[in-house]
Amino acid sequence: MKINKNYAKMKDGYLFAEVAKRTAEYQKANPDKKIIRLGIGDVTIPLCKAAVEAGVSAVREQGEADTFRGYGPYRGYEFLTNAVVDYYKKRGVTIDESEVFVSEGAKNDVANILDIFDAGNTALIPDPVYPVYYDTNVMNGAKIKLIDANKSNGFLPLPHKKLKADIIYLCSPNNPTGAVYNKEQLKAWVDFVRGAGAVILFDAAYEFYVRDPSLPRSIYEVDGAKECAIEFCSLSKTAGFTGVRCGYTVVPRSLYNLNALWLRRQSTKFNGASYIVQRMAAAVFGPEGQKQIADNIGVYMKNAALISETLSDLGIFHTGGANSPYIWLECPGQKSWDFFDLLLSRANVVGTPGAGFGKCGEGFFRLTAFNNFAETKQATERIKAVLG
Amino acid sequence: MKINKNYAKMKDGYLFAEVAKRTAEYQKANPDKKIIRLGIGDVTIPLCKAAVEAGVSAVREQGEADTFRGYGPYRGYEFLTNAVVDYYKKRGVTIDESEVFVSEGAKNDVANILDIFDAGNTALIPDPVYPVYYDTNVMNGAKIKLIDANKSNGFLPLPHKKLKADIIYLCSPNNPTGAVYNKEQLKAWVDFVRGAGAVILFDAAYEFYVRDPSLPRSIYEVDGAKECAIEFCSLSKTAGFTGVRCGYTVVPRSLYNLNALWLRRQSTKFNGASYIVQRMAAAVFGPEGQKQIADNIGVYMKNAALISETLSDLGIFHTGGANSPYIWLECPGQKSWDFFDLLLSRANVVGTPGAGFGKCGEGFFRLTAFNNFAETKQATERIKAVLG
Repeated sequence: MKINKNYAKMKDGYLFAEVAKRTAEYQKANPDKKIIRLGIGDVTIPLCKAAVEAGVSAVREQGEADTFRGYGPYRGYEFLTNAVVDYYKKRGVTIDESEVFVSEGAKNDVANILDIFDAGNTALIPDPVYPVYYDTNVMNGAKIKLIDANKSNGFLPLPHKKLKADIIYLCSPNNPTGAVYNKEQLKAWVDFVRGAGAVILFDAAYEFYVRDPSLPRSIYEVDGAKECAIEFCSLSKTAGFTGVRCGYTVVPRSLYNLNALWLRRQSTKFNGASYIVQRMAAAVFGPEGQKQIADNIGVYMKNAALISETLSDLGIFHTGGANSPYIWLECPGQKSWDFFDLLLSRANVVGTPGAGFGKCGEGFFRLTAFNNFAETKQATERIKAVLG
Repeated sequence: MKINKNYAKMKDGYLFAEVAKRTAEYQKANPDKKIIRLGIGDVTIPLCKAAVEAGVSAVREQGEADTFRGYGPYRGYEFLTNAVVDYYKKRGVTIDESEVFVSEGAKNDVANILDIFDAGNTALIPDPVYPVYYDTNVMNGAKIKLIDANKSNGFLPLPHKKLKADIIYLCSPNNPTGAVYNKEQLKAWVDFVRGAGAVILFDAAYEFYVRDPSLPRSIYEVDGAKECAIEFCSLSKTAGFTGVRCGYTVVPRSLYNLNALWLRRQSTKFNGASYIVQRMAAAVFGPEGQKQIADNIGVYMKNAALISETLSDLGIFHTGGANSPYIWLECPGQKSWDFFDLLLSRANVVGTPGAGFGKCGEGFFRLTAFNNFAETKQATERIKAVLG
């Protein structure tokens, strides 16, 4: 028996472990200091009422003989896939119900989608990056090309003529940089990919944070995208489902035969998402649910705006914060981990060193809006005092 | 962009579609006939009370700020992994908490486990078989060897000296044959595999149906298995979780470095199972839950016993039925699909043609215990009238 040798090529995922270690060491040495965490990428506001009510009903249904449901459809129940279709329709995007695949999280789908592609493809991955894109390609033994996201391109790299790639990862609003592509920029990617016979894997996990109506929340707002892009969406950051687990992926029928291949993959390796979770997700797409999650996102966006404003006042270059829960800032004259230590020891604020997301992340730092307003305000005051 | 060419080598999964088509056609032509379904592999009894109560509480917790939980541990919450450890302990099997991986279903894990192995391995798969073993190996481009399960070996194939394989699939109690390996037989596999540097993937999804205390419910009841076997378990058939989605996989730390590789796979491609589902699963392992699911399984086992008894009275060779919800019978002088048509048209009973599970399934037929007693009794009376 031989193991998958590609696993040996993976780097250790030490970023968040090292953050936790340094934070714990500082707290131990300084037990009286109150540390504020603006480093985590996890939500903090509980589920909206609509989702809770739907969940309680669905659990009870599963306990009664006349409403019990066993195996569900591989792509998800129509009450949810149709809700997703309507959600897109509100933004002027037409997709067919048969193009929607419900799963237990966008991470699963972004990772598993590689199953339907040949391992000999070249993946183009922006740097810095959400580590899953990179790691899953290493695991598959695919060829990887990085494309620099940096200060000069506003952390929004664009295609150029000499670029060659088969599978192109785009994440907008971006994790970790918070940068958001506009329609013209996405159109440049769509045109490039269509000419090259490639495919875009578009990660839209943070689409709900886009407030500027001129910015696209779906790549399908761009003409031609349905012939070249798969889109991954999640209820994790939009509705606080990080612990509930629900995502959905759109694989257009006009995208080669990828819709049929993905259905084959999912029906062979997956048995549908939990009925209870699907009912909760469907409630989020209802009018009450949409209002409630918008209120919750509003809390995070107020935090993000405050952090962004503070950095602007300090004259610090940053991306994100306006249409994204992430704020990506240039460490003033320092490397990422030095800035981490400075912020921890002097402001007692924990963030995430940009160097942990790739070589272009060196000298940058990620703060997140996933805290309450009082703590976020206190954190920005401390940051001002230290850096002002 | 190139797609995974192995998908083109997959056979169409037409078995259950064809069953549904022939059944619908018969019903349409004979609207007055009451068809009884003993063909499906899905449970029919609703969730036990303990699971429902735990689910309602967990959903409510997710709606309150002080009990809300976001991302959970990749391997599952300790309240559940420890419950699994205790569940094994009751049967005299010692596993460590770090060896338990909770997921959203055994099917996912049985399929995804191939990620950690080299695609150049040879998989040994019994015939007839649960289609997922075969299909996932085709998708991966692995070499496949079939080993005959037939009347002469009681549908329990054993290793022989000339056999060469890297990954060996065993399912006991078996789907579709209902046959159960005894300890000596499993020991033969364990000894063979340890000598060959291979690994056993042991599917124990039906372990709760084993009533005979001399029969193993886990491969780890056999000495040496922790050095050569991964075990897949599920709450689908034990606790009616087919629509709730929860399974768990045991990857021993003494099994090469597979525990670390699987953790790496899961932490990269998966974000943990739903907190709500995990609470429901943990309740199943509690004393109340165990009693309640045993009562439910008792209903199915009474059905299975009746079907088995009926076939014995008719002098029809069959396996399963005593320690399994499946009954696998030899069609009296007929091919599988001819027997399907006979049973449908003359007894108005629907089962599953064995030929759909592999070449050794030809001439055999699967009946399941997942119905209520009244319908099962009526079905057996009709079968007696037709075949007696």
